[in-house]
Amino acid sequence: MHSFKEVTQIFDDFLANEALFPGEPAGLYDPCRYMLQLGGKRVRPALCLMAAEMFGTIHEDAKWAALAYELFHNFTLIHDDIMDAAPLRRGNTTVHEKYGLPSGILSGDAMSIYAYKCLQSISAKWLPQILHIFNKTAIEVCEGQQLDMDYEKKDDIIVGNYLKMIELKTSVLLAASLYSGALIADAGTGNCNLVYEFGKNLGIAFQLQDDYLDAFGDGSKTGKQKGGDIRANKKTILWVLAYENADGAGRKELLEMKNITPDERVDVVFNFYQKNDIQLIANSYINKYTDLAFDVLSQIKVEDSRKEPLRKLTQQLLVREH
Amino acid sequence: MHSFKEVTQIFDDFLANEALFPGEPAGLYDPCRYMLQLGGKRVRPALCLMAAEMFGTIHEDAKWAALAYELFHNFTLIHDDIMDAAPLRRGNTTVHEKYGLPSGILSGDAMSIYAYKCLQSISAKWLPQILHIFNKTAIEVCEGQQLDMDYEKKDDIIVGNYLKMIELKTSVLLAASLYSGALIADAGTGNCNLVYEFGKNLGIAFQLQDDYLDAFGDGSKTGKQKGGDIRANKKTILWVLAYENADGAGRKELLEMKNITPDERVDVVFNFYQKNDIQLIANSYINKYTDLAFDVLSQIKVEDSRKEPLRKLTQQLLVREH
Repeated sequence: MHSFKEVTQIFDDFLANEALFPGEPAGLYDPCRYMLQLGGKRVRPALCLMAAEMFGTIHEDAKWAALAYELFHNFTLIHDDIMDAAPLRRGNTTVHEKYGLPSGILSGDAMSIYAYKCLQSISAKWLPQILHIFNKTAIEVCEGQQLDMDYEKKDDIIVGNYLKMIELKTSVLLAASLYSGALIADAGTGNCNLVYEFGKNLGIAFQLQDDYLDAFGDGSKTGKQKGGDIRANKKTILWVLAYENADGAGRKELLEMKNITPDERVDVVFNFYQKNDIQLIANSYINKYTDLAFDVLSQIKVEDSRKEPLRKLTQQLLVREH
Repeated sequence: MHSFKEVTQIFDDFLANEALFPGEPAGLYDPCRYMLQLGGKRVRPALCLMAAEMFGTIHEDAKWAALAYELFHNFTLIHDDIMDAAPLRRGNTTVHEKYGLPSGILSGDAMSIYAYKCLQSISAKWLPQILHIFNKTAIEVCEGQQLDMDYEKKDDIIVGNYLKMIELKTSVLLAASLYSGALIADAGTGNCNLVYEFGKNLGIAFQLQDDYLDAFGDGSKTGKQKGGDIRANKKTILWVLAYENADGAGRKELLEMKNITPDERVDVVFNFYQKNDIQLIANSYINKYTDLAFDVLSQIKVEDSRKEPLRKLTQQLLVREH
């Protein structure tokens, strides 16, 4: 059994050996290569390979599925960065900033098609089911991005809606990566569904924690500017919880914080969160979905020792020092 | 056997009966619905169904393939319009002008995924081959769009390169639609390849004619503003031929025409074309690819009467009054 770090290496070796994009037209493929070499944690492909190994071995088909999910994820990042007008991604210039808007759009499009091209390397036996879960998930990710954009313009988002949004935008892709790896390893319908649920809960908990750490994390450990979401007036679980739990005066106060300078806002919003126990409430949500993830993992019908790498990864991702 | 008009109706009925896009999120799916209802000639799905019927009957699978190609085509139009900063499409406001840039990007993305979703309705027997030709073509269309953008910035495009660009950007999608319809009708490899070649030549001839009619067509018949491409300084087969055939002084003259007002440019460029017999040379290219299309059609191994609808359509599209 391989650890997260080890399967990531297996995936990176596979990626390095595949001459994925041709050289020409360079205007189309240079941005694709640039985006992929920015790195990222390769969580989706790793989950796909780890699910495959939990039920058997890492079949070549699982590597193609893993690559498809990684390419799809990177495609969404390229286009999301345009929609969000983001100048930086993983500390580097975003694709559209570096190569221009048309290149950002077109290279993203090409990358999404290359994701589907990976699927065509998967055995006919699995292809219809893989294509089905891949399409379903890809559509959900678009819907999640749309809800995210919709919610940025709304104030009264209830927690349930926010959770649904992050489920669609983030979690289902982790869940589908795991599901696809398990499917290719012949895990059976029951186990595939469980591994999907595990991924969904893991993804929700992870995204909630990401929101949480923005305000309450230790910048030196998270590697991110503290309060970046608050500065950017970005909706997070913290903001949604604060707004939902506030009375009329509190809501007015929260809305007015949008209009002060970012530097001032970080302190004012942070104090509001502290005064209203938002840290505590948010933590209960993170714990809920973390517990659900572990619980579903325990239900998967496979020898317990085979779950160890995924259990460790979950601990590493979710039960970290804040 | 159904005519082009009749298969278009069959396709439109199929499209109307499928509740393709869900209602919500409306911000994602309203732009998709808007784009599809703008119409267009439905050439790609019609070709898919006509190829299927040439070798058998119009199987349900062929309708799904036809829809996939139509959705893919519409997705490329949405994104191309952003890249070209086009305000109008089919006489109506473009998607990004009507709904904003993020919606243009995201609804295009969703539409391309829905194209792949259509493929999953195709029998497992054909799915791997259909996915293969669909991916190959989709990638080529992106490469064609990239070359188109590259060539807009270059002056010395040789005719061969221009032809390759329109082959990728336009023709291969017609060819693949035909190929897929034939494949699903069990036409056999030889016939599938021939039908693909037919479509490729048809597509090239059609695009060249489109370029040609911009300068030499009868505006009242083409329904387009005469000289629109010249006004927009757009590269066409006419411009490429004029530049390739000109001497140093002629090329300098052509390049200087970019800097005068659009109204003046229409007359000056048109006169340059006339003086240098560009109309004649361009016509010989159109005739070459039209002849190739008819020639390949004649080689297809099926009873001649079954080719009649495609022969008529080719005549209708290519041998029209200028």
